[in-house]
Amino acid sequence: MDEPEQELGITESKEYNTGDWYAEVVRKAQLADYAPMGGFIVTRPRGYAIWERIESHLDGWFKQTGVQNAYFPVFIPESYLEREKEIVEGFDPEVAWVTHGGYDELDERLAVRPTSESIITPYVSQWIRSHRDLPLRLNQWCSVVRWEATETKPFFRTKEFLWQEGHTAHRDREGAWEETMTRLGQYERLYNEVLAIPPLVGRKPEHDKFPGADTTTTVEALMPDGKSVQGGTSHYLGTTFADAFDVTYADADERERTAHTTSWGLSWRSMGALIMTHSDDQGLVLPPTLAPEQAVIVPIWDDQSKAAVLEYAGEVERTLTEAGVRVHLDDRENRTPGFKYNEWELKGVPLRIEVGPNEVADGELTLVHRPDGETMTVDSAGTAGTVDEHLETIYAKLYDAAEQTLEAGIREAESREEILGTIGKHGGYVKAGWCGDEACEAPIKDAVAAEIVMVPLDPDEEPIHEACAICGEPAAETAYFARTY
Amino acid sequence: MDEPEQELGITESKEYNTGDWYAEVVRKAQLADYAPMGGFIVTRPRGYAIWERIESHLDGWFKQTGVQNAYFPVFIPESYLEREKEIVEGFDPEVAWVTHGGYDELDERLAVRPTSESIITPYVSQWIRSHRDLPLRLNQWCSVVRWEATETKPFFRTKEFLWQEGHTAHRDREGAWEETMTRLGQYERLYNEVLAIPPLVGRKPEHDKFPGADTTTTVEALMPDGKSVQGGTSHYLGTTFADAFDVTYADADERERTAHTTSWGLSWRSMGALIMTHSDDQGLVLPPTLAPEQAVIVPIWDDQSKAAVLEYAGEVERTLTEAGVRVHLDDRENRTPGFKYNEWELKGVPLRIEVGPNEVADGELTLVHRPDGETMTVDSAGTAGTVDEHLETIYAKLYDAAEQTLEAGIREAESREEILGTIGKHGGYVKAGWCGDEACEAPIKDAVAAEIVMVPLDPDEEPIHEACAICGEPAAETAYFARTY
Repeated sequence: MDEPEQELGITESKEYNTGDWYAEVVRKAQLADYAPMGGFIVTRPRGYAIWERIESHLDGWFKQTGVQNAYFPVFIPESYLEREKEIVEGFDPEVAWVTHGGYDELDERLAVRPTSESIITPYVSQWIRSHRDLPLRLNQWCSVVRWEATETKPFFRTKEFLWQEGHTAHRDREGAWEETMTRLGQYERLYNEVLAIPPLVGRKPEHDKFPGADTTTTVEALMPDGKSVQGGTSHYLGTTFADAFDVTYADADERERTAHTTSWGLSWRSMGALIMTHSDDQGLVLPPTLAPEQAVIVPIWDDQSKAAVLEYAGEVERTLTEAGVRVHLDDRENRTPGFKYNEWELKGVPLRIEVGPNEVADGELTLVHRPDGETMTVDSAGTAGTVDEHLETIYAKLYDAAEQTLEAGIREAESREEILGTIGKHGGYVKAGWCGDEACEAPIKDAVAAEIVMVPLDPDEEPIHEACAICGEPAAETAYFARTY
Repeated sequence: MDEPEQELGITESKEYNTGDWYAEVVRKAQLADYAPMGGFIVTRPRGYAIWERIESHLDGWFKQTGVQNAYFPVFIPESYLEREKEIVEGFDPEVAWVTHGGYDELDERLAVRPTSESIITPYVSQWIRSHRDLPLRLNQWCSVVRWEATETKPFFRTKEFLWQEGHTAHRDREGAWEETMTRLGQYERLYNEVLAIPPLVGRKPEHDKFPGADTTTTVEALMPDGKSVQGGTSHYLGTTFADAFDVTYADADERERTAHTTSWGLSWRSMGALIMTHSDDQGLVLPPTLAPEQAVIVPIWDDQSKAAVLEYAGEVERTLTEAGVRVHLDDRENRTPGFKYNEWELKGVPLRIEVGPNEVADGELTLVHRPDGETMTVDSAGTAGTVDEHLETIYAKLYDAAEQTLEAGIREAESREEILGTIGKHGGYVKAGWCGDEACEAPIKDAVAAEIVMVPLDPDEEPIHEACAICGEPAAETAYFARTY
């Protein structure tokens, strides 16, 4: 062993020191490192492989539903950013500015894109002439930069982050709203079917909408430490951007009309939620949907059994590979089985397959589930089907645990004190009647750093209580208070 | 028709006005538009779809040969860029600098990455401890920015361009050289098997290597106008970067050794070569490997035959889709068949399938090859196999035409006058004996704007002539002179 064991292991506690534990898991599972510039990270292959799989799922769904990928410049001229005033007010404080090209100062500063409405919408305006050109649905996978001066938290808070941003134009409100809901539904599906995290879906309150949006809808995921992660947002932009950039079209009756637009984005923050939700004090835990290796085979041998064990293990590997399972046979000579167990647990491989002389003799395999360590011996006949079933079971275990966290994490409150007490004690979501005024969020924010992360999607839904829990005026809707990442 | 026909058609001539013709094809086939900032372009869905397919082919080959994708920051601190002096000398004049984050001036300027050796190698240094960590092979798909003040030519010359950059570390020269050749071979394969362009492979002369490289190898493609495109480069970097960034490892004998590194990149310039090579005065021509639609079905009907024609066409579409052909049925009501022919020709669809009352009556299909307009009638039985064969034939037609261009475009010369005369009259490559001194390239550059684009890969290959065609001293190698993009 030329690598000390303690370097591999997680030393922080998820329960008692969540922030440090998270940072340690990200680094020791080799997902990311810190970059030399504060706020930036380097995404290592094991981290990027997860993002690639998230991208592959979403991109497939987007393409099935009429979205085309494109690529717009990384820079946006300052004058373009200024054409929509809410965008400039919302993002100006966070823009990284390019001022020089080579040895020359530029005539006009260029923003490194913080989001691309201001450079995409002018082209949408050129490309649309007639109602037959609608809907127009564009998406790009890229990075954006927002110069926020907060502590770096890999995937949760970084000055540069990877995301996809979708931008669409439609004939009318109805088409654009349907689009907004389609993308929100795909984000929800990603959480449910790929990330193994049941989310809540809702709207952002008026005062926390995307700059320029008519409505911002959101997927929210509850973390085990009681904080909510905004896991993806889908915006119905009304005609704000269409008006600012002249996105009009000739309708069937030849009259010029203004298009309605949407935008929607999901970032690698979803990876942060994934890591935070499932991992534990042994390290990373990944669902089989996203794990670079779904199963690892660890052979256990002595001099006498070595050849037979390795042959048997090799056969299992071939069978699983042919069946499309992402499997790795760890036949390193210079590592003990125990060392290998720890290493693959740290790296989050969902299923461990142990193969020793007993397994060879009995034609069996020993399977160990990463999330809970459940161990069982199975017949080696029908290996591929058996492993598939176990991978599904592992997904279900992760999903069920996250669902329990969510179900236990939604509470109600009828007064300011009750909101503060409940969030202070349990975290999670607290549902309360709300008059709709941002002023009633302020005392909660000040006291326990919680905010209104969402209200119900349906604006006509009756509020949970008749009165606003803070001011006592009639409630307009139900607010979900929570601390956030 | 609410869109005037002439807007669709190409008006410039490929033969007589290549530059304007190219720009017109790019815009009218909806591949790209110019961005508001000079030197930048907007890549539209039909352009990006080609790049996605190039990416998909190469990425698959990379992964099969041990490469892992990662993502490094878009910015590089100035002090990091300065750590390898040849990099800073080579790229400093072309760097876009971020000087402000939000309202604050930064303590240190950040370069928007022109290439990532200077940010990747320090991490490679941290991640490698033992010979068991080698080889380490990283790649990223991203954009880079180089502030060159030349005329914009979409995909050929843009200040921001999309590419992949691979970065690897190895135990010794042999491993790193093998890697350099593997990637060069994959680029060559891309040109041969995907882009339908037979390339030349060779080395860049000493004075035109990548900054810091020991050897730069290149894939060169000859365009129909006689200019050479550098289509992808693979660099053996020796220990230049490993020395600058301390990339050392403990070898099997426990001694500390310096790694040898490589880097290799292919950009969307390959798309430029693709468009330039195959397209014609009717518009874009794409090989079936990369075309968003491989075949388009154009139904031809009158009132009486409409129902039968559309049913028949729909069946052909279903059959082809099920067989994995990317096919589109253009059943628009408000366009004539002739209009549709022109539009899909402009957009480069390799195969047109015409279906009218005669085809329905006879159980046939009329097929038209985009590259040469060859038209034939085939039986509709076994449609999928027939179409596959025709797509292969179309690929072969494109490849053969490009091969003829290349074969006719390589000439020899034994004197300065002969080089100048041959390039002046024919373009293409001129092979000549060369002493190895950059000074002997200068008069050719000055007179006809041609340079030495490559020398043979094998440094021991005998020069074509005994004397340098320019100075008359003994020739050290064979130089390939050509004008370039």
